[in-house]
Parts: sequence; structure tokens; C-alpha cells
Amino acid sequence: MGRWKPDARGRLERAAYELFLDRGYDQTTVEDIAKRAGLTQRTFFRHYADKREVLFGGAGALQAELLAALDRVSPELPAIEAVRLAVEAMAAFMDVQRELARERRRIIATHADLQERELIKRAALTAALAQGLQRRGVPEPAASLAADIGVAVFFVAFARWVTGEAARELVDAVREGFDQLKAVAAGASA
Amino acid sequence: MGRWKPDARGRLERAAYELFLDRGYDQTTVEDIAKRAGLTQRTFFRHYADKREVLFGGAGALQAELLAALDRVSPELPAIEAVRLAVEAMAAFMDVQRELARERRRIIATHADLQERELIKRAALTAALAQGLQRRGVPEPAASLAADIGVAVFFVAFARWVTGEAARELVDAVREGFDQLKAVAAGASA
Repeated sequence: MGRWKPDARGRLERAAYELFLDRGYDQTTVEDIAKRAGLTQRTFFRHYADKREVLFGGAGALQAELLAALDRVSPELPAIEAVRLAVEAMAAFMDVQRELARERRRIIATHADLQERELIKRAALTAALAQGLQRRGVPEPAASLAADIGVAVFFVAFARWVTGEAARELVDAVREGFDQLKAVAAGASA
Repeated sequence: MGRWKPDARGRLERAAYELFLDRGYDQTTVEDIAKRAGLTQRTFFRHYADKREVLFGGAGALQAELLAALDRVSPELPAIEAVRLAVEAMAAFMDVQRELARERRRIIATHADLQERELIKRAALTAALAQGLQRRGVPEPAASLAADIGVAVFFVAFARWVTGEAARELVDAVREGFDQLKAVAAGASA
């Protein structure tokens, strides 16, 4: 039973980020990551299709959390309020270290194919949120608009949180973002 | 001087769409497009890198129009009003036939690489608009939020216009979209 290793996925992720930080994304191989995590390449490929997927492996859980949070919100609330609460719950659920988030961002910014992947994940998240709102009975185009806006607020807040321009906690940065959104949409900001 | 052909680019575009509609995107070659337009493949490649670019060739002009329109807007206006006027001007500038837009949408929906390209163009448009707002003195995160929101309204309105759910004229659909945005952001829509 000596081959059983708890939390292989988490260990692979941590090992990958350590190596990405130490020697750079391009210079890191799957072999390096597996070795650093004390696991085999075979185990790596059981969790991730390639090293790129380590950067995006959390997207599925994030989307699931967003939709679960949306389901918990009272159906009485306006669409944008439901979105705000769901996005805040998603942000609170994310247990991201700012330094890793910053490194991930830097890696993605320097690789066109990773930027594309990030855009695709964002589009998928937006579409899933819009569908979640439609299931709550929100009509179009309100559902699509509220979803687009909510995801935009999240990414703007996340970017500011990563660079240290926004609040210390991601969830606070998101909360600030929704307040700023209200001001912007109402035409308050010149 | 018999080789001089006016509006080669427009003729290539029309020929390409005719063929995409007639025989399908995958079944259409650059040779087919050039032949239908009465031009050489060499001329085709002077205007487009490949047939895919025919679908996205208008993005540069669109972005230029958006930024030019933004520059014409009074600097006194709130960011979201400036964005609304610029996006409406861009929509009015687009001379798109609904049937072609619908076909383009159908082609893109069935090709993952074209969807990625569409997302990239949208992200580039959003970033350019945010920079345009920053140049007007709009602070962050208001500039990024207003740009994200404006582009989201445009794409939601465009999708509804293409499918015939929104107004007959694209610019009217966009105007409706900004009204709906106000309602959504204010929490009016349940």
C-alpha cells in the first residue's frame, strides 16, 4: 500500500507552481513536476492532460461553486443581486495565494495559447451563469447581461486584487467591484 | 491596365460568403473564392491571410470606428454614456446584412478555433475601449468595467438582432440593450 499518496492532485499543483516560479513555465516538464511531487508521470496524467491544464484545472470546480451558490440565493432577488451573491461566494470559495495568482497571470500573459484558453474558460463561465439565471426564470436579455456583467466585475476585481490595487481579500475586492459597477452603470463616474 | 479591379476586398468577401452559404465553410477553398470573385489567389492573399480571415477581416475597422466615435464624445459625459454613444456609432457604422451575420454566426458556432478567434477579437475590442476611456481620464476600475459592460451589451444586442429577437436595425437593438443594462444593473429585473 506504499504507493497510496493522499492529495496527489494538490501536490502536483503545488510542485508545478514551485517549478514555474523557480525555473519558468517553458523550462518545466511534466517529468520535473511529477518528480518534485514525489509521484510518477502516470499519476500526473491521471489528473492533468498536460502541464497547461495545471493552470486551468480549477475552472470546473469554480464554475460548480458559482452555480451551487446561485441555487442557494433566494429566487425573490433581482438577477444582478443573485449574481453578486453567487460571484462573492465563488470568490470566498477560492483559496488562492496572491503570489501564485500573480505568477499564473504572468505566465498566461506571455503565452498566446494560454490567453486563448483563459478567454474560453471565461466565456464558458459566463454562459453557465446565464443558463443558471435562465433556469431561475430570468428572461433574456437580462440573464445574459447580468451574467456578462457579473463575470466582468469578478475578473476586473481579481486583476486588481492580484496586483495589489484592491482589497487584501479577494471577496472584498469583488464586493467593491459590484459597488463600483452600480456607480458606473448609473453614470456616476465621469 | 485591364488587371485593375475596383474593391477587390469587398468582392472577395461577398464571393466568400456566397460560397460559405452555398456549399459550406469547410468545402470552400481560397481558389474557389478567388475564382468566384474573378480575381487571382495572389490577390486574395494580398487582402486576407486565409479564408478564416474573411470572417474576421472587419474587426480592425470596427475597433477604429469605436475609438474614433469615443473621441468625438464630449469629455463631460460619464464613462458609461460615452461608451453607449461610441458603441451605438459603431453599430450604425456596421453595414451588415442580417442573413450574412447569421451565416457567419453559424459557421463560427461549429468551429472551435473560430470561436476562440471571436473571443480574442472581443477581448481586444474591450481592451482598446478601456484604454480609450483611460486616455479620457476615466480612472480604474471604472474604465475597465464600463468597457466590459459596453462590449457585453453590444454582443448581447448583436446576437438578439441576428436571431431576429431584437429590433430590425442593429443600432436600435444596441440602444435597447443599454436601456436593459440600466434596468439590470439597478436591480429592476427579477
